[in-house]
Amino acid sequence: MNTPHKGNGRPGPSLTFGDRLSTAVAERESQIVLGIDPDPAKLWPAAIDRTSEARARLALSFSDAEEAAGEQPPSAGVVARLETAAAVLAHCRAMIDAVAPAVVAVKPQLACFERLGAPGWLALEHITTYAREQGLLVLADGKRGDVPVTAAAYGQALVGSTPSPFGGVAGLGADAFTANPLLGRDALEPLVQAAREHQAGVIVLVRTSNPGAADLFDLKLDTGERLWERIARLVDELGQAGPAGLKDVGAVTGATEPQHLARLRELMPHTPFLLPGIGAQGGDVAAIAPAFAPGKAGGLVTASRSIANAHEATGATPAGAARAEAERLRELAWSL
Amino acid sequence: MNTPHKGNGRPGPSLTFGDRLSTAVAERESQIVLGIDPDPAKLWPAAIDRTSEARARLALSFSDAEEAAGEQPPSAGVVARLETAAAVLAHCRAMIDAVAPAVVAVKPQLACFERLGAPGWLALEHITTYAREQGLLVLADGKRGDVPVTAAAYGQALVGSTPSPFGGVAGLGADAFTANPLLGRDALEPLVQAAREHQAGVIVLVRTSNPGAADLFDLKLDTGERLWERIARLVDELGQAGPAGLKDVGAVTGATEPQHLARLRELMPHTPFLLPGIGAQGGDVAAIAPAFAPGKAGGLVTASRSIANAHEATGATPAGAARAEAERLRELAWSL
Repeated sequence: MNTPHKGNGRPGPSLTFGDRLSTAVAERESQIVLGIDPDPAKLWPAAIDRTSEARARLALSFSDAEEAAGEQPPSAGVVARLETAAAVLAHCRAMIDAVAPAVVAVKPQLACFERLGAPGWLALEHITTYAREQGLLVLADGKRGDVPVTAAAYGQALVGSTPSPFGGVAGLGADAFTANPLLGRDALEPLVQAAREHQAGVIVLVRTSNPGAADLFDLKLDTGERLWERIARLVDELGQAGPAGLKDVGAVTGATEPQHLARLRELMPHTPFLLPGIGAQGGDVAAIAPAFAPGKAGGLVTASRSIANAHEATGATPAGAARAEAERLRELAWSL
Repeated sequence: MNTPHKGNGRPGPSLTFGDRLSTAVAERESQIVLGIDPDPAKLWPAAIDRTSEARARLALSFSDAEEAAGEQPPSAGVVARLETAAAVLAHCRAMIDAVAPAVVAVKPQLACFERLGAPGWLALEHITTYAREQGLLVLADGKRGDVPVTAAAYGQALVGSTPSPFGGVAGLGADAFTANPLLGRDALEPLVQAAREHQAGVIVLVRTSNPGAADLFDLKLDTGERLWERIARLVDELGQAGPAGLKDVGAVTGATEPQHLARLRELMPHTPFLLPGIGAQGGDVAAIAPAFAPGKAGGLVTASRSIANAHEATGATPAGAARAEAERLRELAWSL
């Protein structure tokens, strides 16, 4: 894959995220997405090694920054977050190294980086760049949604850039990002526009996998349809397909409700589905076959904790267990 | 006000965000919230002054950081974002200095900082600390919402802290933050729990002010109620009130639909309302009187661009025009 969308290597003006995704899935023979949700209390032991290159580099540089800003010597709190962000970076790089051959994309969970403040965001930027260098797509999982003027700012943050008197400020450079549709069409459109300009995608929440999703997504409207069906129609309308036939606006479709998948596919025949809930949340890979109706790239299978923590059950090394679990999921999904 | 919720000065174990808000509004005689949505292309001229202390400090420190991380000399892009973040910081500090006497809180829009990357997040942290030092509440506006495990991470990011092998990592330290309810009750509860533990609040989207909000919020359910009415019931249930009688879970209620306010107040009698849409979005302060039924702190009136850009219409200095506009809004709302 490895087709950066910021200038060089851009394959052609009409190529969309759907095309890029189709190509990547075919080339890598994988529909698996590595969810990157680092918990500082559960990092792989090697990531805490004080000699880790990534850790030392990030910690040192941020220490300098905080000291130059007037805090001398840095407080225990400042040091803790620098070291934590660096350890998280080392952990995530090790995970990517371990599972890259088995996956097509990574999905960093923005909350897990934001909770480490500015150093956490810097770690997120490093990880995004690193994953792209390994030929992986990066799906930034922040579930953003806001009024139109602010939605445009999120587009700049995640896939675009921001004009300033000092020159353009590049955003994260993700290949796609998740979005929340509650604020309606005019709030989604600036996100879609920003993504499309950069051959990137937006993946909209249509039905999530948590038990509480029933509270609102499953509400029955006076028309007889469910709220998630209405959202699915909106998502179908927003997406545009390129030559490969897959649209550039995707859908988060919780795999813990497999009975819904056929209906979701009916409402969104050409939409890539992001399927959470495999692994730690208890979903079953075989139950999601309807997602792949438009082709193998029609369903992306996400797994996070089941890969990162695979060693807890097997006794293998973290990297070896993670790679084996990712490869197991890859073969299972690819065979459907 | 100035009651930090992280240790010292904590007024008492039973005090809630509703109590803190009530006290702050009474003491400052203001219900006005300064929305901080900095657009790098529209900063106050003084913020771009190369001699600005804040700008030089932040730019220098981050330059060091990036250089130490191996980029020597820093690329034009790295310099642009450092300088932009520093100019944004200077702009926001100047705005806070100008309008602090007329407002009770600031509401930084997280998207506007995220689009400047790690330096932007550092600027957000500086602004949060600075506003709290001026005695203002900080309402972090990110409209977060995610599955429970991730919601807990957002709670750590915005009001709590994250355990790590290196010690606790403090989050942003906001007094409240906005949240999106689409994922249901179990996705909101970790946010509410994190906030409550820190005497902070959660302000949930119940009906936003953009035209597209009609697409989903206004959908009629088979029970006859609107989706926003169902969300309002959920918000009412989640909140808890302290001695002052105002709950610690608030509601974003778009003031561009004033005919809804009476109904919203009926459904959420003790909930603080955050009223966007005044000013740039065209709302009318006098139309929002029902919000104040539970007391003056029952309605917070947000204004962003109408304050930041007030000088464009008047010809006054940016700071003078901003202060005059904030004071005008303060008097208008206080008189209701």
